[in-house]
Amino acid sequence: MKVPKYYRIKEAILELIADLPPGSAVPTERDLASRFDTSRTTVRQAIAELVVDGKLVRTQGSGTFVAQPKMMRVRPLSSFSQDLAMDGWRPGSVVLDISELTADRELAERLRVQPGTPVHRVERLRTAFDEPIAHETAFLPGPLLGLPERLAEHGSLYRTLREEYGAVVATAEDVVETALADPVTADLLGVDTGLPMLLVQRTGWDPAGNVVEWTESKFRGDRFRFMSRQQLDWAADATRP
Amino acid sequence: MKVPKYYRIKEAILELIADLPPGSAVPTERDLASRFDTSRTTVRQAIAELVVDGKLVRTQGSGTFVAQPKMMRVRPLSSFSQDLAMDGWRPGSVVLDISELTADRELAERLRVQPGTPVHRVERLRTAFDEPIAHETAFLPGPLLGLPERLAEHGSLYRTLREEYGAVVATAEDVVETALADPVTADLLGVDTGLPMLLVQRTGWDPAGNVVEWTESKFRGDRFRFMSRQQLDWAADATRP
Repeated sequence: MKVPKYYRIKEAILELIADLPPGSAVPTERDLASRFDTSRTTVRQAIAELVVDGKLVRTQGSGTFVAQPKMMRVRPLSSFSQDLAMDGWRPGSVVLDISELTADRELAERLRVQPGTPVHRVERLRTAFDEPIAHETAFLPGPLLGLPERLAEHGSLYRTLREEYGAVVATAEDVVETALADPVTADLLGVDTGLPMLLVQRTGWDPAGNVVEWTESKFRGDRFRFMSRQQLDWAADATRP
Repeated sequence: MKVPKYYRIKEAILELIADLPPGSAVPTERDLASRFDTSRTTVRQAIAELVVDGKLVRTQGSGTFVAQPKMMRVRPLSSFSQDLAMDGWRPGSVVLDISELTADRELAERLRVQPGTPVHRVERLRTAFDEPIAHETAFLPGPLLGLPERLAEHGSLYRTLREEYGAVVATAEDVVETALADPVTADLLGVDTGLPMLLVQRTGWDPAGNVVEWTESKFRGDRFRFMSRQQLDWAADATRP
């Protein structure tokens, strides 16, 4: 097995910072190159991966530091605001766009409605400690009169849907995968295009089985992880051959 | 907003392959560079990201092709073998190591046992259509006499634990995040070091609340996504301030 040279340096830096608290300064590229007797290019590659891994953060002009641990979002709790508030992450959001459109074929399929149905699009930046950590676009079928004002009043989209429109998300299906940041999302989140992200696509149904939302969220892969807790379905298993 | 040049080429290639079935050959780097009037370096970067995204696959010597869609693992169904078998992915696994160790402090904390407790370590390569897609290491507390033979007989680790040792995983907590492939995992899965992976750490409890397993799985981010379906807990929400 061939271990790339930068990877050994990556491991050496990890060891170096293992006991340092978040926010500690990391030696400069030049110092690390000299300490590990390697080139600055190799050190740079090792640091780049440690930044993507969420172990280090780089601040324009002021250097490289030990990162805070990744934020954890707990599922099946449903609300971004609730999850992060419980952990003291001071969640917030910035509305980038609320608009109306008519569903094309693809969107109609996702929302299980007829093509041409009116749909609201709500695009938001989600923040923690005022730092942007996710780019989220929700598609909501139905007229939803006065949505911008009502969302502004309640803050939480789920709360607005429930209290203003009686639309309750009772069941959700999440598809989670890795995806590389596109330039629009990268720009909004202040990261490099190509950073690995956690892409979550959620379909939410009301108790009657109608789709209430289809939402695509892109979470910073270096800052975020998900936790889900579940009962395993052994009854179903036992009946299988 | 600055859109990197390679990203425009990436989008152009995506458009080019949008209607092609999986397995279709993609024009060569040289052809694409000439078609889009750009350098081969730029085309190479665009293709590299499309490979990481799971849109294209590169085969040593024979070229670049449209990839199969990502495999989907359905949760909270519990068993890798079951999930993939249902979708016809022909799941398999290769045992790399079964050994006994005594829990150090970190492992003891994960398994909620005393440091020094005997633990089995089961390291496996998980495959679909004989292609390696995940590298998985399970830690199981307890004596588990004859585990290697019994696992070989049953194939499924969960089935072995249940039928041979009466150990049933009833509740599981999964932590999901992105992580870059380390050289060992990359070598085993036949991918490049640094490929974004889905890292899943599972703690599994029996009905009495004892930890039955702590397992770390690294899934190829270019080949895999997870689906989870859940009931949202609005009763709990309604009682919150």
